[in-house]
Amino acid sequence: MHRTAVKKVVRENVLDANDALAQANRTRFDRAGTYVINMMSSPGAGKTALLERTLERLCTELRLGILEGDVQTTLDADRLARFHIPLVQVNTDPGFGGECHLDANMVHSGLPELPLDEIDLLIIENVGNLVCPAEFKVGEDVRVMVYSITEGEEKPLKYPLMFRSADLVLVNKVDLLEHLDFDMQQFLGHLEAVNPGVRHILTSARTGQGVEEWCAWLQQRLPPRLRE
Amino acid sequence: MHRTAVKKVVRENVLDANDALAQANRTRFDRAGTYVINMMSSPGAGKTALLERTLERLCTELRLGILEGDVQTTLDADRLARFHIPLVQVNTDPGFGGECHLDANMVHSGLPELPLDEIDLLIIENVGNLVCPAEFKVGEDVRVMVYSITEGEEKPLKYPLMFRSADLVLVNKVDLLEHLDFDMQQFLGHLEAVNPGVRHILTSARTGQGVEEWCAWLQQRLPPRLRE
Repeated sequence: MHRTAVKKVVRENVLDANDALAQANRTRFDRAGTYVINMMSSPGAGKTALLERTLERLCTELRLGILEGDVQTTLDADRLARFHIPLVQVNTDPGFGGECHLDANMVHSGLPELPLDEIDLLIIENVGNLVCPAEFKVGEDVRVMVYSITEGEEKPLKYPLMFRSADLVLVNKVDLLEHLDFDMQQFLGHLEAVNPGVRHILTSARTGQGVEEWCAWLQQRLPPRLRE
Repeated sequence: MHRTAVKKVVRENVLDANDALAQANRTRFDRAGTYVINMMSSPGAGKTALLERTLERLCTELRLGILEGDVQTTLDADRLARFHIPLVQVNTDPGFGGECHLDANMVHSGLPELPLDEIDLLIIENVGNLVCPAEFKVGEDVRVMVYSITEGEEKPLKYPLMFRSADLVLVNKVDLLEHLDFDMQQFLGHLEAVNPGVRHILTSARTGQGVEEWCAWLQQRLPPRLRE
């Protein structure tokens, strides 16, 4: 019990410090007029593939920027390099001991590489993980979760914090629906149970399904001066 | 930099304490003659479904036990209850603040619920996460990783610690191979790059493919007195 109590205090201190740093990031984004999305999911749910579709759709309309979080490698950043937009990779491994999430300080460390004054919309691609990324605010405006239907129906109940903290859930890989034993109504029921009223959009990065709807949702959330 | 250094020291202390507790668990398993598997994967990679297949195959030959790790819910434990074997659920949420992994102390906390002297093989199903579970020894004999091919080819490079620490990789959901753009040779090349010589078995919990081979691998690892 003692050890648990100590851990809890350490954890609360860490989260308090993180909130303060997130607020500092927030102030910086506000000053630059940059709208910020924190995109989260399990490993392999399709965040990067959906980002590619999103950039194809929006890169002529908005000044975009990307902050890529990964434990190791620049593979995701390399995939997005073809868009020739400001992009910074933050690896959580060397400086932070292999963290399983981005925190406000890690995001802060990447900002000097980005010309925020010239970025309307910054998309932060978090580390693939259904638990810890949801605990750490990074100064974002909205949280968008990508969920792959290959992960099963029950995950909202098993990992409620992530699903509860999402402003939008992109239910991805729906092109595989006919090949899986996935009960969409059951999944959506579980999602509604942990985050009542949350919006979801069925997407497929492979076929492009839902990308238009997701980009429309996004554009509606932007400040008036950035809307078409 | 200062903050990073402080975090590193805290982390090393946590891992040192964990190693000591893992050794205590190990001593307890040895005394009981229990062989222990730590099973790890991303969320939704199919650990529980493969466990069901494994229990079907082995429950008449070995005295089995299960320790189920989840952030919340007893859904996985409920799925396995039909086997009527000793089973304990450890939720990482209430007592530990929503941890994204099992550590040695959490496993220790579940052991009083298990009749170890009557268990030949204990399977620990870890929390679904590709990062932190690999950092925490829990006293296991072997680590088995379940990897779903829906997660893409590049994950061994992005999450090397998990793949490197595995004694066996079960490459799961291969029944979906024809419906995915998944390059198996590329994935296996990445796996070999981070964990040279590691054994892998192609499995499908849905069709049963590979279950016989996986159970044979497992039985070969058991102490002589437990082999058929």
